[in-house]
Amino acid sequence: MPIALSVKTTHRIDMIDITSSVQKEVSNTGIQDGICAVYVPHTTAGITINEGADPDVCEDIMAKLSELVPSRRGYRHTEGNADSHIKASLMGNSLSVLVENGRLVLGTWQKIFFCEFDGPRSRKVYVKVIC
Amino acid sequence: MPIALSVKTTHRIDMIDITSSVQKEVSNTGIQDGICAVYVPHTTAGITINEGADPDVCEDIMAKLSELVPSRRGYRHTEGNADSHIKASLMGNSLSVLVENGRLVLGTWQKIFFCEFDGPRSRKVYVKVIC
Amino acid sequence: MPIALSVKTTHRIDMIDITSSVQKEVSNTGIQDGICAVYVPHTTAGITINEGADPDVCEDIMAKLSELVPSRRGYRHTEGNADSHIKASLMGNSLSVLVENGRLVLGTWQKIFFCEFDGPRSRKVYVKVIC
Repeated sequence: MPIALSVKTTHRIDMIDITSSVQKEVSNTGIQDGICAVYVPHTTAGITINEGADPDVCEDIMAKLSELVPSRRGYRHTEGNADSHIKASLMGNSLSVLVENGRLVLGTWQKIFFCEFDGPRSRKVYVKVIC
Repeated sequence: MPIALSVKTTHRIDMIDITSSVQKEVSNTGIQDGICAVYVPHTTAGITINEGADPDVCEDIMAKLSELVPSRRGYRHTEGNADSHIKASLMGNSLSVLVENGRLVLGTWQKIFFCEFDGPRSRKVYVKVIC
Repeated sequence: MPIALSVKTTHRIDMIDITSSVQKEVSNTGIQDGICAVYVPHTTAGITINEGADPDVCEDIMAKLSELVPSRRGYRHTEGNADSHIKASLMGNSLSVLVENGRLVLGTWQKIFFCEFDGPRSRKVYVKVIC
């Protein structure tokens, strides 16, 4: 089984900073130099990297996604989460981040965000480092 | 040359489940543990992972993309497929999936979908496993 | 430190073909066979692969992104670039491209584009090849 982080989300639409949890798993592997794959095994959640300093950035991302892909009726999929699936594909569910000297190589303002689109739920994120 | 899957699409906009074909190529490599890169070498097609159980999910994704990026006139690119290029960039053309015990590590509901935005056509998808 | 390309952008929203610079760094590694990760360490810029032959394709992509995510007021983030952050997450900030015989394996019409959403600026792109 791959390394799996547990993520608890608290709203239907939510963005959770998982950077330190991903870094901890990278550190646990002992790998100094490689590529870290971060993978969301869900179909109504995604992953993105964006600014972590001002939480309003995530609020704006979520508001815009909800404006472009509203959760109203009118979809064919009748489970009430058609919008969640669409949002997930727009954000994507896999990322690659470089690892150097045992650390994720992120830009100054970058944080890794788990994107919940059909919460609140308990979710998983897989992490794997290849060197 | 990389491993290349052939994909036949049957509509202008189409999503084709290629999961079993990708898995077959992963199995052929004999690699038990690694990362599988899936890459679309076209500019009017993309790739995404989403729910495969209810085909209406893909219908909703395609309908929303066509609503946000309609195929009407008004673009600068005059080949009639400007919308196809835009949809391709919104979905993305590369994915990474973990491989463990020789199997793609996908979530319960996840399938890998080739996204055609200017079909019907014969297309290629490259697959490579790194360990 | 990872290999870092420097990219100069000249407009607020801009797409710059960085394919030959990425290929040069791949060649410098001497690696013949692997996966090339291309990573943007910024939160108001992204990366995509699309058609390079007709510059109107990029114009259409930028125009549509600006229509879907306009740069007007009304966002919570008050630095005037909320739209730039949203556009960055829609495009994504990491890519994987296969490498065979020391060359990026790109489709006939594909070029790698750095996507500026809050320029003009001097930017970085990280490149790493894993084999």
